[in-house]
Amino acid sequence: MERRHYKNVRLSQFARHLMAEWRRLKLPTSNDSIVVAVSGGADSTALLLGIEELSAKGKLSLHVRVAHLDHGLRAASRKDAKFVKTLGQELGFEVTVGRADVKERAQKTGDNLEQAARRERYQFLERTARRKGARYVLTGHTMDDQAETVLLRLMRGSSSLGLGAMEALRPIHKGSDIQLARLLLDVRRSETEDYCRRRKTAVLTDEMNEDQRFARVRVRTQLLPLMHSFNNRIVEALSRTAGLLREDSDELIERATDLLLSAIIPPDKSQTELTPLDVNILAKASSPVRRRALRLWISENQGHTRRLEMAHLKAVERLLLGNSGGRVVELPDGAKVRRRQGRLEFEAEND
Amino acid sequence: MERRHYKNVRLSQFARHLMAEWRRLKLPTSNDSIVVAVSGGADSTALLLGIEELSAKGKLSLHVRVAHLDHGLRAASRKDAKFVKTLGQELGFEVTVGRADVKERAQKTGDNLEQAARRERYQFLERTARRKGARYVLTGHTMDDQAETVLLRLMRGSSSLGLGAMEALRPIHKGSDIQLARLLLDVRRSETEDYCRRRKTAVLTDEMNEDQRFARVRVRTQLLPLMHSFNNRIVEALSRTAGLLREDSDELIERATDLLLSAIIPPDKSQTELTPLDVNILAKASSPVRRRALRLWISENQGHTRRLEMAHLKAVERLLLGNSGGRVVELPDGAKVRRRQGRLEFEAEND
Repeated sequence: MERRHYKNVRLSQFARHLMAEWRRLKLPTSNDSIVVAVSGGADSTALLLGIEELSAKGKLSLHVRVAHLDHGLRAASRKDAKFVKTLGQELGFEVTVGRADVKERAQKTGDNLEQAARRERYQFLERTARRKGARYVLTGHTMDDQAETVLLRLMRGSSSLGLGAMEALRPIHKGSDIQLARLLLDVRRSETEDYCRRRKTAVLTDEMNEDQRFARVRVRTQLLPLMHSFNNRIVEALSRTAGLLREDSDELIERATDLLLSAIIPPDKSQTELTPLDVNILAKASSPVRRRALRLWISENQGHTRRLEMAHLKAVERLLLGNSGGRVVELPDGAKVRRRQGRLEFEAEND
Repeated sequence: MERRHYKNVRLSQFARHLMAEWRRLKLPTSNDSIVVAVSGGADSTALLLGIEELSAKGKLSLHVRVAHLDHGLRAASRKDAKFVKTLGQELGFEVTVGRADVKERAQKTGDNLEQAARRERYQFLERTARRKGARYVLTGHTMDDQAETVLLRLMRGSSSLGLGAMEALRPIHKGSDIQLARLLLDVRRSETEDYCRRRKTAVLTDEMNEDQRFARVRVRTQLLPLMHSFNNRIVEALSRTAGLLREDSDELIERATDLLLSAIIPPDKSQTELTPLDVNILAKASSPVRRRALRLWISENQGHTRRLEMAHLKAVERLLLGNSGGRVVELPDGAKVRRRQGRLEFEAEND
């Protein structure tokens, strides 16, 4: 005990915590490259400072690339990018700054600005990691982000799938070999702020963080403070619940994958249709597993599940549980699910 | 369509909705007895008025017994009991009023007043049903109660088991042959109030419903109104999510029951210990299923799971996943779980 304490005496608590999480997630500690996403706010700045501290103390020996996307949404965004560039360079890291036209993207895809910004950012981060040969992109999401996300999803009426916690480690997008690593999910936002202060490092404050038009800002500044009056460890409680729901959801998705594999009918080579499913096998499954299997199947066939809601899955369930054949459910993006002769068939939009 | 509309023309929308739910839950419609729990507030009064309307229109032909428990917690409680008695009798129903000393019970059991009142009430309702030969006890819980309950549990950090919705039909207590039926879970509280007004029936307003010392009252008067500013169908959204979480939870409990049955080691007749479990079988299961199986096992052995928290279940998991044998986890009520020679053993408090 004494000895270990002595050994760590010069590491801050924040850096020790970061290192413990680093080991738990089995991230590389030497001879490798990582990308750190830095907005310049307290969370990502603390992450970067923590990595710098661990590097200075010989705990990490990595090639660190700071990545910052200028979303071009605010007048100050160029100045912010410059701030991050200076910060990264002063800490001895290389910095990549990207620029995106989020407004244009949003107009093209019909996403809202927040969604479009998010997509652009993750694509930029993945691109940067690929170019630099990094297998990990690190972000500064904290337990507070976790709690806010849970509440936003809860208020939209999400199922447990949507309510489940952000994972500490996952592919940056489906099927990618580049992992998104969130090492601060057990850290409170106040701890990142404290650490930046103790490191005497200024951080950017995003004026959007004060803009009450954003639901997330109102969750942070109104809803969570009210909930705090019920439970003064509300952020921890929400985060814990989200973690349990994520485990439940993962388990049910695993069962759903098994169900899907058992329900797939080997395709008839003479037909061009996509993989059909056996109605009888699906009918015997429980709803929570069946709906997740249907969602996976639609995702496989359609390439995405945007705009797909529980109401659509329930409609497909009614289709396969009913007795009459030859009926059809229309999905939001023009594709159809048809029941025909004991089979559930997927028809793409352009069929 | 025309015909059906004509047939129902004299039934209020509230009564039609109630009847639809009655059929969905397959409750008896004639030649049977039911108990209706009536506090005198808008929800349970509307339920009783709805039953009266359905009876008057020939949709129901049942022996209806109104049951009201005077908890003795407030000065006005005797007057309230009298009010319910008069209401029930004026509608042509028999009324049973019970009295309980909730304060004494709370002191004895260490429960808080709300919990103690709840326990006394359900015991009284079950006793009344048994005496009167009724298999169903109906309560006036609404969608608003559902949403409040979800939020209260969420703020305590419940797992999905705790977050799941109240069920419309379940045994009034574990193993009982008397069912608790909640037919208004899809009805908003405002609808019960409207119906009472249209029926020109006065209802009791519980001053406890205004007392901001109660968490439920603050959820109703502060938290839900704030959440309403994010989603003006927040009660519906919370209720829908709770329903999905309940289905997920039921599915996982079913899997857990299977796991538990497969892990039970047939007891050695020479020993007095309770049914032990096979560590190797449990070790192979996933956490969400295993923890629920352990909870079921502890509940079976101990007779309850009060004060049992996720932390205890995680400790038992570590016990069975670790390599060293002969270790022990202490449960909150003095019982112990011990790992010995590849078996998980339950030791009751007095062992």
